[in-house]
Amino acid sequence: MTALRIGIVGYGNLGRGVEIAVSLQEDMELVGVFTRRDPATVSTVHEQTPVRSIDALESMQDEVDVLLLCGGSKTDLPEQTPLLAERFTVVDSFDTHARIPEHFARVDAAARVAGTTALISTGWDPGLFSINRVYGEAILATGCTYTFWGRGLSQGHSDALRRLDGVAAAVQYTIPSQDAIARVRAGEQPALSTREKHTRECFVVLEDGADADAVREEIVTMPHYFEPYDTTVTFLSAEELARDHQGMPHGGFVIRAGESSPGTNQTIEYRLQEDSNPEFTASVLVAYARAAGRLAAAGEHGARTPFDVAPGLLSPKSPEQLRAELL
Amino acid sequence: MTALRIGIVGYGNLGRGVEIAVSLQEDMELVGVFTRRDPATVSTVHEQTPVRSIDALESMQDEVDVLLLCGGSKTDLPEQTPLLAERFTVVDSFDTHARIPEHFARVDAAARVAGTTALISTGWDPGLFSINRVYGEAILATGCTYTFWGRGLSQGHSDALRRLDGVAAAVQYTIPSQDAIARVRAGEQPALSTREKHTRECFVVLEDGADADAVREEIVTMPHYFEPYDTTVTFLSAEELARDHQGMPHGGFVIRAGESSPGTNQTIEYRLQEDSNPEFTASVLVAYARAAGRLAAAGEHGARTPFDVAPGLLSPKSPEQLRAELL
Repeated sequence: MTALRIGIVGYGNLGRGVEIAVSLQEDMELVGVFTRRDPATVSTVHEQTPVRSIDALESMQDEVDVLLLCGGSKTDLPEQTPLLAERFTVVDSFDTHARIPEHFARVDAAARVAGTTALISTGWDPGLFSINRVYGEAILATGCTYTFWGRGLSQGHSDALRRLDGVAAAVQYTIPSQDAIARVRAGEQPALSTREKHTRECFVVLEDGADADAVREEIVTMPHYFEPYDTTVTFLSAEELARDHQGMPHGGFVIRAGESSPGTNQTIEYRLQEDSNPEFTASVLVAYARAAGRLAAAGEHGARTPFDVAPGLLSPKSPEQLRAELL
Repeated sequence: MTALRIGIVGYGNLGRGVEIAVSLQEDMELVGVFTRRDPATVSTVHEQTPVRSIDALESMQDEVDVLLLCGGSKTDLPEQTPLLAERFTVVDSFDTHARIPEHFARVDAAARVAGTTALISTGWDPGLFSINRVYGEAILATGCTYTFWGRGLSQGHSDALRRLDGVAAAVQYTIPSQDAIARVRAGEQPALSTREKHTRECFVVLEDGADADAVREEIVTMPHYFEPYDTTVTFLSAEELARDHQGMPHGGFVIRAGESSPGTNQTIEYRLQEDSNPEFTASVLVAYARAAGRLAAAGEHGARTPFDVAPGLLSPKSPEQLRAELL
């Protein structure tokens, strides 16, 4: 078996996770990390990982099978995915839900012209959660689908806290309501308000001389971010923040609750518990890289999403082995 | 949109479930039930459902898009699936795990010669549980996969009880160990013995004059079926059995627990809670019927399993709609 040759574009938390995840897959090898920074300034997890300028990709079409794009959805991927799809099979984790159709169209156009395969919006949401929403509503035609997130660190909400006057540092956790989940599992199919589904926990380090009560009030009344939720604010020292809040846990639930006939409840629940959100997302990207390589080899050109990828394509095992061992 | 025309072959609990599930899908219509019994003796859920002899299928190739085969895995499906695949697109729920490769090969040969599509081993295990085993180990390359069944009524174990001298009627429930599940969720990756994973609860109606202690002893020491488990036996009246144990609940868990890097635990959990096992299984078959019809229309001939079916093919929604609404 020839190993699938992977390139990583962009080296933040997600790129680091991909570097680790590729090393756990026996049928893959890492060609290198490609960065816009000065390669000499990038320190990788594994010392032997080559780091090159993103410009080096120009001449490497024959050395890379699949590029994993690890940039952000706001500015990096809208530009990089269509551009790199002109020459490579690519996988991204574009996660701005509202802009997916537009991103898909641009990537699809580029990939069709070039005869490449571009698998977008892999990861866990969008990604694994999305396919469970599809399976759920296809199987239980009559019912409701619920998505709960957390307990998890929210980067966007943490950033919102850090921008406030008087806040030196902060993190925010999104907490799914256990009561709401219990009602959904019980088949109640409740209509749940935003406030009933999640709560928010903020851990804040104040700047010297800041007024704790004023900061707390500003947080809990912040429109969109915190006002619609029951929000708790805990003040702590910079040392405590560094000691207790360095992880990036996340996860959540997709639950489809339906009735197969009146009064006969059926519930499908998908749950993720992640010690590290970027490492988990990276693990998903890497499995989808295998699928992207196979789709490209089969001549399936254009943009694809996890909805278009059969489960068996993610596995290193042959169809025969999968049927014998896992069916 | 032209409705997908469905035929049901075999009319037990699963066939009844399919009849109901098809009625919930707006893009399907039921051509009828096809039975080996005298059609006049078959009473359907919906009065208007046509019931015909299975022999009537001979001349109905142009009237049916997908046949859902609802017979048993022991004797019906090994014969019917390859035979009917010679003329129809078929979906079955063949569930004898050890014999799947052999069944696949026979069905595949028939379908390839005939130019039909045959989707086998749909349902929830094999089926939904199987694809979650594949996703889990593909994504978390380093880890362990656990399958727990229940709380659920086991037909095979209930039959084993009913064959005993002194037993007038009985049901058996398989119960997953909450302690074992908690350990798996916590990322312990424990090695679990058969006894640690499940317990068994028997509800038994004795025949007149039967010796309760002797029956209990015979049950808990029965090799393979009950001896390897902690088994409880509760005696009750025929009235109590009829009142409290008429449902066919089932479900279970597939959990993949892995580490994305040393000490970083990641857990993927898939859980089903079914008030009615046959109705849930039927709902899965019907969603896969949609996929089978699409695979057939795309010229994908031969045998397939849920591993080969992209999630989007199960949904009545278009790819564009899925990307906009559920990704």
